[in-house]
Amino acid sequence: MAGCCSWLRGFLFEYDTPRIVLIRSRKVGLMNRAVQLFILAYVIGWVLVWEKGYQEVDSVVSSVTAKAKGVTVTNSSQLGFRIWDVADYVIPAQGENSIFIMTNIIVTMNQTQGFCPELPGRTSVCKSDSDCPAGTTDTHSSGVATGRCVPYNRTLKTCEVAAWCPVEDDSLVPSPAFLKAAENFTLLVKNNIWYPKFNFTKRNILPNITTTYLKSCIYDAATDPFCPIFRLGRLVEYAGHSFQDMAVEGGIMGIQIRWDCNLDRAASFCLPRYSFRRLDTRDKNHNVSPGYNFRFAKYYTDLTGTEHRTQIKAYGIRFDIIVFGKAGKFDIIPTMISIGSGLALFGVATVLCDIIVLYCMKKRYYFREKKYKYVEDYEQGIHNEMDQ
Amino acid sequence: MAGCCSWLRGFLFEYDTPRIVLIRSRKVGLMNRAVQLFILAYVIGWVLVWEKGYQEVDSVVSSVTAKAKGVTVTNSSQLGFRIWDVADYVIPAQGENSIFIMTNIIVTMNQTQGFCPELPGRTSVCKSDSDCPAGTTDTHSSGVATGRCVPYNRTLKTCEVAAWCPVEDDSLVPSPAFLKAAENFTLLVKNNIWYPKFNFTKRNILPNITTTYLKSCIYDAATDPFCPIFRLGRLVEYAGHSFQDMAVEGGIMGIQIRWDCNLDRAASFCLPRYSFRRLDTRDKNHNVSPGYNFRFAKYYTDLTGTEHRTQIKAYGIRFDIIVFGKAGKFDIIPTMISIGSGLALFGVATVLCDIIVLYCMKKRYYFREKKYKYVEDYEQGIHNEMDQ
Amino acid sequence: MAGCCSWLRGFLFEYDTPRIVLIRSRKVGLMNRAVQLFILAYVIGWVLVWEKGYQEVDSVVSSVTAKAKGVTVTNSSQLGFRIWDVADYVIPAQGENSIFIMTNIIVTMNQTQGFCPELPGRTSVCKSDSDCPAGTTDTHSSGVATGRCVPYNRTLKTCEVAAWCPVEDDSLVPSPAFLKAAENFTLLVKNNIWYPKFNFTKRNILPNITTTYLKSCIYDAATDPFCPIFRLGRLVEYAGHSFQDMAVEGGIMGIQIRWDCNLDRAASFCLPRYSFRRLDTRDKNHNVSPGYNFRFAKYYTDLTGTEHRTQIKAYGIRFDIIVFGKAGKFDIIPTMISIGSGLALFGVATVLCDIIVLYCMKKRYYFREKKYKYVEDYEQGIHNEMDQ
Repeated sequence: MAGCCSWLRGFLFEYDTPRIVLIRSRKVGLMNRAVQLFILAYVIGWVLVWEKGYQEVDSVVSSVTAKAKGVTVTNSSQLGFRIWDVADYVIPAQGENSIFIMTNIIVTMNQTQGFCPELPGRTSVCKSDSDCPAGTTDTHSSGVATGRCVPYNRTLKTCEVAAWCPVEDDSLVPSPAFLKAAENFTLLVKNNIWYPKFNFTKRNILPNITTTYLKSCIYDAATDPFCPIFRLGRLVEYAGHSFQDMAVEGGIMGIQIRWDCNLDRAASFCLPRYSFRRLDTRDKNHNVSPGYNFRFAKYYTDLTGTEHRTQIKAYGIRFDIIVFGKAGKFDIIPTMISIGSGLALFGVATVLCDIIVLYCMKKRYYFREKKYKYVEDYEQGIHNEMDQ
Repeated sequence: MAGCCSWLRGFLFEYDTPRIVLIRSRKVGLMNRAVQLFILAYVIGWVLVWEKGYQEVDSVVSSVTAKAKGVTVTNSSQLGFRIWDVADYVIPAQGENSIFIMTNIIVTMNQTQGFCPELPGRTSVCKSDSDCPAGTTDTHSSGVATGRCVPYNRTLKTCEVAAWCPVEDDSLVPSPAFLKAAENFTLLVKNNIWYPKFNFTKRNILPNITTTYLKSCIYDAATDPFCPIFRLGRLVEYAGHSFQDMAVEGGIMGIQIRWDCNLDRAASFCLPRYSFRRLDTRDKNHNVSPGYNFRFAKYYTDLTGTEHRTQIKAYGIRFDIIVFGKAGKFDIIPTMISIGSGLALFGVATVLCDIIVLYCMKKRYYFREKKYKYVEDYEQGIHNEMDQ
Repeated sequence: MAGCCSWLRGFLFEYDTPRIVLIRSRKVGLMNRAVQLFILAYVIGWVLVWEKGYQEVDSVVSSVTAKAKGVTVTNSSQLGFRIWDVADYVIPAQGENSIFIMTNIIVTMNQTQGFCPELPGRTSVCKSDSDCPAGTTDTHSSGVATGRCVPYNRTLKTCEVAAWCPVEDDSLVPSPAFLKAAENFTLLVKNNIWYPKFNFTKRNILPNITTTYLKSCIYDAATDPFCPIFRLGRLVEYAGHSFQDMAVEGGIMGIQIRWDCNLDRAASFCLPRYSFRRLDTRDKNHNVSPGYNFRFAKYYTDLTGTEHRTQIKAYGIRFDIIVFGKAGKFDIIPTMISIGSGLALFGVATVLCDIIVLYCMKKRYYFREKKYKYVEDYEQGIHNEMDQ
C-alpha cells in the first residue's frame, strides 16, 4: 500500500528527460539541422501542403441525365426521303448514365416468320440437302436449318433456314454513315454530384451560368469549359478521332466529368472538368464486332393478323458519362497520422548523425566515451567500470 | 575477422538505453503526465474507438432491381377514356439502377413524314419565302426548312419544314399532371450488396422480414424503416417536395441506400438506411429543360404501307437508386499505423516539457546543467569541459 | 541581438545526442535485438511487401458493352411455330452495364381498352355488385373496378374492371421455360477500364488474343480464363445454379470482373478475373416477386384506328456486369507513413527492455542507479543529490 503510494507519487511528481551530450561541432551541428530541415520540409511541404495529408477524402456519388437535340433528313432508295428526329435516333428513349445516338443503319423491312435461304457463309453454302443437317444452328446463323438446300441466287445455293425472312444481309455497312449529319447534333448533359461524407452537393450547371447563356452555348475546352452542351462532332474530335469515321461502324465515347474538390476552400472552386476518351479501341487485330451496334425491331400486324417486323441493325455512338473525383476536407485523424509519422522520421536525423559522429569522425573514440557509459552485468565487470 | 566478431558480440550482447535525468518536480511531472494522458486519450479514444482506426475499409458493390405497381384511369378529349398500367407508364420496361414513371404526356398522334408549317418561334415566323432559307435547321426546330413560308393559322405565317407532321406543340404542359394518380403507385426496390474485400453479401430484404409483411408494408421512416416498398407520393414528400408539383414537368428522385457496416459486429447490425433527395434542383434561373422528359414514338403502318407514328413527349419522375457505403473490419495494418503514429506523438510530450523546464522555469540553468553535458569539438575545449 | 546571435550559433553549430547507458548483458541484449528484429520484420515483410504499404491505390473506372448471339425456335399452341432471334429476346435492345435475356414469357394477345372480369383473387371474387365498390383499385388489381359483378367463368363471378382486356393471367408460369434453348446463347462482354490517378487503361480483350481465337473461344475458368465470350448455361453453372431452373422465373446473374493490378509490374500482369454470382437469392420465405420479370407491350392499331396491344410478361435473366478492383503504384507518401509509423514502433523495443531491466532483473537497483540521475526541484534536495 505504502509502496503503491510512493510509486504513484513518483509516477506523478517525477519528470524524466533523457540526458544529452551537447557536442559543439560545426560539421555535425549543421549536418544535423540540415537533415532535420529536409525532413521538416518533407512533412510540411509535401505531405501536408502538396498531398493534402491533413484531409479526409470522400469519393463522389452522382446522377446524370443526357438529352440530345437535332434533326436531319436522308434520302435513300430503300427508305426514300425521310426526316430523322430525336424519337427516331435515340435508342432507348432514355438511359441512365449513357445515351445512344444512331448514326448508321441496316434496315430489313417486312420480315415475317418463314423459310428462306441463309446468307452465304462458311457453313451455309451447300450443294445438296445432305450438306444441311436439319435443326442445326450456330451462333452466327440467322435461323434454324430446315435441312433443305435451296438457291440463294442464280449461281449460289445455301441451306434453308426457319427465320424472320428475308434474313438480314449486313455484309456491307453503308459508308459514309447514313446519318452523318449527326455530327451537328447537340447533347445536354446534366450532372448532380454528392459527397455523402461532407454532405456537399453541386450541379455541373454552375450558379453563375445564365439561361440565355445555356440556350446558346456550346462546350469548348478553351472558351466555354463549363457549358454542359456538346456538339457531337467536336466532342469526338477532342478525343482525337474523326466523327465521320466513327459514325460508320459506331463506337463508344466516354464523357468524363472529374470533380476534384478541396472543400476547405469555397464551394465555388469545386468545378467539373470535362475530358473525352474513346472507350472502344479500334485496333485492327481485335476486330470482333468492331465499333458498336445492336439489333432491334418494330413489330406490325397486317389485316390477316400475321406479324411483320422491320429489323434494324443500328450502328451508332454510345456516350457514356463517367463521373468521378475525390473531395478532401480537413480532418484531425489524417493530420495527426501524417504529423505523427513525420515526427517519427526525425529520429532518423539523430541516428544518421550519431553514425557519423561515432564511426566516421576523427575524434570518434572521444565522442563515444562521452556518449556512452559502459555498465557490466558481470560481477567482475563492476570494478573496471569507470565513471564518465 | 576478429574485429567483426567482437563487433557482433557487442551488437548482440549489449543493450543501450538512454540515460535519464529524473527531475523531482510536481509542476513538470504533472504537466508531463497530463500531456501524455491527452495524447493517449486521443490515440485510444479518438483514433481507435471513434474513428475505428483499427479497421480496414471497403466500399460497396451493389445490384439493384426496381418494380412498379399500380393502375389508373384517365379521361381526356384527345385520348378518351383510357386505362394506364405498368406496361404503359414504365419506360423503358426495365432499367438497371433506375426506373422511370411517366406522370405527364404530350401526345402527337398520327404523325407522317411530310411538309407542314413549323411552330411559331423566334426564327420560324416569316413574312415571305425569303425569310425561310431552304435546308436550314437549328437545334430547336422540329424539321428541315423547305424554303416556303406558309400560313400556320389565320393570323400567323411560319416557315414550312419537312418533318413528322403535324409537328409536336409542347408549348403548354398539361397541369395538373395527366397521370396525377401515379402518386399512389408503389415501387419495390430490391438491392443486393457485396463487400468484395470481406466477401460479405446482404440484401435489403432482411432475413427477419416475412412474406406477409412484404405483401402489405409501405416504407415509413418511423414505423417501417426496412420495408423496401415505397409509395411514390410519400417518397417525394420525404425529400421535401410535392409530388403533384413535380409530376407536371417531371424530375429525378434519388433513393439513396446507405450500407455502413461494422463487420466486427454481427451481420444483423449491418442494415440499409434509406434517404431521399431530389436530384434535379429546380431553381428558376437555370430553367433550361426543367424537370425531366424525353420523346419516344410508337410506329404503325397502314394498309398502303405508309408509316405513321404516335409521338409521345413523356414527362415523369426517374427514380435513381443510389447505393453507397463503407464496411470496416479489424485489420492489423491500419491498427499498427494508428498506434505507431500515436506513439510518435508521445515524443511531443517530452519536447514540450523540456522547453518549459529548460527555458521557462526559475531553475532552468540548474536543470540545463543537469541535462546537458557540453563537449567541445576543439582541443582547447576539452580542459574546461566539466563532468556531470 | 547579441543573445539572439549566440542562440543562433548554438542552434546551428551544436549537436545534441542522448547519452546512453550501454549495459553489457547477454539476456537483455539478445531480447532487445529480438524485439527489434520482430518489429523490423513486421514493417518490412508485412507492411511493405505483403500489404504493399508503399503503394498509392486508385479504384477502377470502367465502361462495359455486352452483346448476345443465338437463335432458337419454339412451337406453342398460342404462338405457333416461331423463331426467336436477338431482336426478339434482348430487351431493351441495349443496356449499359447489363443485358437482359428473355427466357420465359406470358403473352396476352390482342388486348384492347375495355371492360372485363378481373382475375379471381382475394379481393376480386364477388357475389353481387355490392361486393365491388366502383372506382377502387389496389396495387395488385389489373384495372379499375366499375362496380359490377360479372361471371368470370361458369362457376365463378368476379368484379368487372376497366382495363386492357382480356386481363393477363400470370397464375401459372410455363415450365420448363419457353426459351429453354437460351442455355446455348453466347454473350460477348467488352470491358474497358481506366485508373485515372495513374492514367492507365486496359481492355478485357487482351493484346495477345487473336481474332480467330475470339471467333471460336468460350470462357472456361480452367482452359480459357481470358475469353470474354460466355455460354449462358455454363455461366449460371459457375455460380452454382441450374440454368433451366433459373430460366423459369428468371433471375439476376452478376458477372464480376476484378481488375487488381500492381502497376509497379508490367502492364501485361494486370489481368481481368471473372467470377459469377447469383444476385437474387431465392430463399423460399422471401418469395415476393421471385426471380426477375417485367411487363411490356407492343402496340398496334387496326383499320378502325382502335389501339390493340400484345402484352408480354417477360421472365428472364439479367446479366449485370460488375467491374471493380484496385490498382497500386509506388508513391512516396504511403511509403513514408508506413516507415515512419514503423520506426515509431522501435521505441517499443526500448520501453519493453527498460521495464525488464529496471523492474524484473536481479540487479535492477544497480541498473537504475546507472540509468537515472535524480535531480531535486527543492533546495534541500540539492545537497543529497549524488553524481553518477
